[in-house]
Order: sequence, then C-alpha cells, then structure tokens
Amino acid sequence: MLTPNINYKSLSQSYLFPEMKRRVNLFTSKYPNIHIYNLGEGDTTQPISQTVANAMVAHVEAMKNKKAFMGYGDPLGSINLRALIKDFYNDFINKPLDISEIFISDGAKADLFNLQTLFQGKMKVAVQSPSYPVYIDSLVINGNAGRLKGHSYENITYLIGNPENNFSPPLPNKKIDLFYLCYPNNPTGTTANREQLKEYVDYAIENKAIIIYDAVYSWFIQDSKIPQSIYEIPGANKCAIEVQSLSKLASFPSIRLGWTVVPNNLLAVKGQINAIWKRRQQTSFNGASIISQAGAIALFSKQGLEENKKHILYYMENTLLIKKTCQGLGLTCYGGENAPYVWIKTPNGMGSWDFFEMLLKKSHIICTPGVGFGESGDGFFRLSGFSTKEETSEALKEMVKLFS
Amino acid sequence: MLTPNINYKSLSQSYLFPEMKRRVNLFTSKYPNIHIYNLGEGDTTQPISQTVANAMVAHVEAMKNKKAFMGYGDPLGSINLRALIKDFYNDFINKPLDISEIFISDGAKADLFNLQTLFQGKMKVAVQSPSYPVYIDSLVINGNAGRLKGHSYENITYLIGNPENNFSPPLPNKKIDLFYLCYPNNPTGTTANREQLKEYVDYAIENKAIIIYDAVYSWFIQDSKIPQSIYEIPGANKCAIEVQSLSKLASFPSIRLGWTVVPNNLLAVKGQINAIWKRRQQTSFNGASIISQAGAIALFSKQGLEENKKHILYYMENTLLIKKTCQGLGLTCYGGENAPYVWIKTPNGMGSWDFFEMLLKKSHIICTPGVGFGESGDGFFRLSGFSTKEETSEALKEMVKLFS
Repeated sequence: MLTPNINYKSLSQSYLFPEMKRRVNLFTSKYPNIHIYNLGEGDTTQPISQTVANAMVAHVEAMKNKKAFMGYGDPLGSINLRALIKDFYNDFINKPLDISEIFISDGAKADLFNLQTLFQGKMKVAVQSPSYPVYIDSLVINGNAGRLKGHSYENITYLIGNPENNFSPPLPNKKIDLFYLCYPNNPTGTTANREQLKEYVDYAIENKAIIIYDAVYSWFIQDSKIPQSIYEIPGANKCAIEVQSLSKLASFPSIRLGWTVVPNNLLAVKGQINAIWKRRQQTSFNGASIISQAGAIALFSKQGLEENKKHILYYMENTLLIKKTCQGLGLTCYGGENAPYVWIKTPNGMGSWDFFEMLLKKSHIICTPGVGFGESGDGFFRLSGFSTKEETSEALKEMVKLFS
Repeated sequence: MLTPNINYKSLSQSYLFPEMKRRVNLFTSKYPNIHIYNLGEGDTTQPISQTVANAMVAHVEAMKNKKAFMGYGDPLGSINLRALIKDFYNDFINKPLDISEIFISDGAKADLFNLQTLFQGKMKVAVQSPSYPVYIDSLVINGNAGRLKGHSYENITYLIGNPENNFSPPLPNKKIDLFYLCYPNNPTGTTANREQLKEYVDYAIENKAIIIYDAVYSWFIQDSKIPQSIYEIPGANKCAIEVQSLSKLASFPSIRLGWTVVPNNLLAVKGQINAIWKRRQQTSFNGASIISQAGAIALFSKQGLEENKKHILYYMENTLLIKKTCQGLGLTCYGGENAPYVWIKTPNGMGSWDFFEMLLKKSHIICTPGVGFGESGDGFFRLSGFSTKEETSEALKEMVKLFS
C-alpha cells in the first residue's frame, strides 16, 4: 500500500510566508481599498541593473540564432560563472577554492533543503533559533528531526539566540555532527565576529562535524572586520558548506540564481560529500536557467558589481531609518547594522502573531512575526529594509502614529 | 557521527549522460580535429522562436523599471501560466483540471526525482525497462529500491519492453502501488494506445495505486489516435500524476520550464498527495525563473504554438530519415514515428557500450547505449532526431559507409 511520507505530518505548522500571505489576503479582501505597507518578507524592490539586464537580453537574443543556440547546460553550472565565483572568493578568503567545489543553483532555498538528503541515520544536529524555517523543515521532512515534543524536535539542539548573547549563541555543551549557522543572521539581523566563528570551525574540525553556513546576507556587511564568508576562517574548507544567493544583491528573487560551495576535503565522512552532492545534482537537476547565469556572469564584472552594490546601500538606508525610528518609539531593537533586518521586541510582551494582526489592522503594515522563526522568536517581530524608500518612510509614519 | 546517505552507494553506475560525455571527451582530447556528430543525448538544436524570445526580452526589460519590477514569484508558478496550461488540457482531455492541480517546475527531471520523496515505507514499484534513468535513481537515493541483486533492485518490478510487446509491456501479475510510465517512450520511441493505458488506469483505480506518467515527448505525436495525456483516459485524474516539460517543444533545455499535474482527488493515500506536494514545493522551491515563465506564457499564444510546432516537424523529419536509412542498412528499428527517437538493435549482438565505442571511433557519431536505460536495453542503441538536418544527414552517410 502507498503510504505518504509521514514526516510531513510532523511539520509544526504551515510554511511561514504562505501563512502570512493568507492572513494578509483575508484582510485585503475585506478592505480592498486600503494601502498595505510591506515590511515583512525579505523581498527586493529595486529593479534589475542595466548591466545584468543587458546581458540577459543579449543571451536571449543570441538563442534566437541557430549558431549561438545552446541546448542542455552543465547541471553543475556554467564553467565561466563558476570560475568567476572562484575568483570572487579568492579576493578575501584564506585558501583558494577549486572550481569543482562550486555548484551553481537556482537559489539558496532548494540547496538548503536538498543538502539534508546527503546524510542518513542518527545524527546530532544543532540549529540556531530563531532561524529561517527551511533548515528545520528539511530536517523534519527527511526524517532527521525526531518527534515533535511541545515546540521542539527531539533530535535537534536549538542554539538559542537572545539579547544576552546578541543572538550569536555559543557552542552547545554536547556533541554535534551538523550545524546550521546563518550570518548575517536572518531574522535577527545580527552578525558573528571572527572569534565566534573560529570557535565553531575549530570544534567542527576536531569532531569531524559539518557546518552548513547560510551566507546569503553577506552582501550587506558594512563593517570590514566581520567575515563575509565562513572560508575566511582558517580550516573552514575542511568543515563548512557555504550557501549563497544573488536574490538580494542582483534583485533576483524571481530570476533565481545562487550557488553552494562543497569543499573536496571535508573531514566528515572521508571527504565523500562533494562527490555525493555532484551525483545528486547531476541526477536530479538540469542547472539553473542559462539566462539567469548570463545575468550572474555580468554581475561579476566591475560595472555589474558597482551597479548592484547600490541596491545594498539603498536597502541599508531603509534599514537604518527603521531602526532609528523604532528606537525613538522606545522599542528595543537588534541587528540592522550589517543586515537588512531589524529584530524588535513586541511592546508589552505581546505574542508575535497578535502583534502581526494588530500592526496589519491598525497601521496596515506587514511585519514578519518572530515566532515564525521558532519558539524563541515569540515576542519579537522582524521589519525588513527591502521596501522602497517612499513606502518605508510612509509605513514608519504609521508606526509613529500607532505608538504615540 | 555523520554518515552519508548510503543509498548513493547502491546506485548501479554513474549517471548515463555524464558517462557518455566522459568517453567522448577522452576521444576528442586525443583527436581534437575530428568532427563529432551528436545523435546521442535528446538535446535540441533549433533556436528559440521569435514570439517566445520576444516575451522573455520584454520581461527582462520591464524588470529594469521600478514600477514593473517583481520580487518573489509564487513557488507554485505564475497564476497566468497555470491558467493557460489548464486551458491547454481542456481542449483534449476527459475531465477539466483545476488550477490548484498544476504546479510549474524548472523542468521534468527535478520533479520526477522529487516526487519520490512524497512516499515512504515498503511499497511495490513498477518501472518500465528500458527507461529514463532518473526513475530508478530517485527510488534508489530515497531508499525505496531495495538491494541491488545482479542488475535488478529487489523492490522494483521491471516492466520489460521488448520487440514482442512493441515496448509497451502489459500489467504485471503482482500487486503494484506505484507505476512509472513514459509514453511516447524514452528511449524506445514507441507509444501506447488508449486500450493499453486504460488497462493501467483501471488497475490503478481499483488498487488505489498511482501512475507517474512522463509525457514530455507527447508533443511529437503525429497519430491523432494516440493519447497526448494520461488524462484522456477516463478516471486517470483519480490515479495519475503527469509530468511535462517545454524543453523539446520550445528549445528550453537550458532555459528550464516544465510542470507537474497532481490531481486533488487521487484515490491513493486519501487524496493527500496534492497537499503534500504543495507543501514540499512551498518549502523547498522558489518557483521557476520568471523569465522562463514569461516565455512559456508566450508559447501558449496561437503564434507561439504555431512557431514552436515547426521545431517538432523539423526533428521528426530527421527521425524518419534516421529510421529509413538504418532500416535500409538492414538494422532492426523501433519507434521513431511519434517520438524523436529510433531504437535500434546492435548488429551481431554487440553490447551497447561496445557499439557506442565502435560508432564513436569509426564513424565519429555519438549514440546513446541502450544499456544506459537498464539491462533490458543492452544490445540496443538509441539515435535521436534532435541534431540539425545537415549534421543528421552527414552522420547517416558515415553510418552507410560503416555498414557497407
């Protein structure tokens, strides 16, 4: 008899963003004329840069010609793009990567989910809390999370980020095989410094553990002392897999392009992970769209990087305004200096979803409820700097009204 | 301790197409000046049509403007594209689909692989042999294939296609929970008629089984009596998941766009599969590239379909020429009438890889060795009609020389 994958039943709730959308739709269907300010999802609003767009157009135009037309690409990604990414890392990391360690993807989300399928059997996993829901959902769906007891899965060690540790939790006091770390952190907008990361890397090397390092917000780092990549930490190429995305830098959320670095010499499982991931990608993926890859190649030109770094500055101005305004209202704020998110304590200890509903109904602002990132996020909400300058400033006026 | 997913070790060999590429590269690195004719991989050579390309260019251009810019798309796909696909099916199928049953993907390969993760536990699976390697590889990697004994996995029932059944194997004499069927068939280029499919659908309804129906070659059907979709068979919407792709029709192998139909009312596992697949896609996918989707929307216009059907006729002319020529050489040929593949018996009972090497070295032609599609494919090779007219005709001249 066919039985469904029962792990889906162990998922604690529906995926965060569709649930937010459902609630917003419920409100807007009642009040279709009310303007809604979206400071919720980490969704870009700046248009695609000239250089990147031109490269994508040129690629489509070329594909209209028989001579330039290309069929299947390499499932692992265009060799030119992989070489550019290798060079990009070379500029600031400790040990050069090899092209065979770079795998082009259609974005970070799928890779973060699929990486979980490389492992099997009982393993001890540590996940930051609060965190991006995909880490835990992928553990659950692949049967590696154990039973849900209350709000926690029994095989997961939660690395609790809180105001005391500035949301950079220290190493736990138990043996861990696999870590999920995200810096600059989503949702808290905070960062880890070199010493904090070194502690994790040293532990992972000694214990043949693996760190899955979600670096998709590294583009927002303003402080040059903060590592942009886990590979800046000596030895990280022996223990860390890094996941990256162009969604935020290049305004690519709907265009889709990212990559994952899986080093050849990971100490865990005798260095086999690179070969297994390569086989997985060749068997179940046909590469990111070649149009997106053409855009990414242009992005790594001098002109491309210059144009796209303006997006980052734009969003960071919004973020700083959010933080300053909310602090002015007496709200307790974290992050927002090297990441496009401000993590804010709800007033009067309100629950996250209650605050979400209140802010939506009274101020017509979408925030992201902290509890959507795990129980430890309850009593917080996240505001994002990704809206337009105009929308952000109007929304903040509404916030000021609400709290005055 | 971290242990790798041992199922990868149970994979019988490296994935077919990279292995072919490896052998071809070995040859071309020795003889860099020899021209190679590629009648191997099912890879398109016709450029992208004007209408589709224009729509993709227009979409990129629009995304350069702040007002038209769009961030994240729906992970399930653009509602406009899903509506067009629904209408497309309405023209020739038995029961109208609902939009909630249509999921846009970045191509058939990933969906065929990922569908396997919906199920769990002991189930009886039947797979056509020979077949596209992804079906069995996904069963193996997800731990549902059982041990490899000789050349067969113990939990898989092989539906052997052979000359006697014209490569449309009948229902097996044992209980099956999940079928993989592919018509028009890859690699044999043969088709199933309505009665043959009805036999499977009736069985699946009665036994609450599911048929995963790979219909990616349906665009090549010339004979109007042959079903283009499993949903033409009454009741199929209660038991069948259909996977589709625009790779061949729209020359999209590197652009990436497909879809999967997962009906709401599958009898198996109480109709939960649609909801589980939806949750999977929302959790682990961020949608196909919106540029590819813009191209697909244009494809479904009158002009778009007209332009793209010319690709099909072009490839079918090549295919018929291949079949006629090979038959003229005394080779025994199958398929090639309603599919872009001709399935050919090797001369003198040669093994598939031996023939592959011989054809590459003597005639500089890449074919696909039949054994790459399963043991029952040994002693056959596949030639594809996807090359250009010029290359196909030159390659066939080499074949004629070889066999004269």
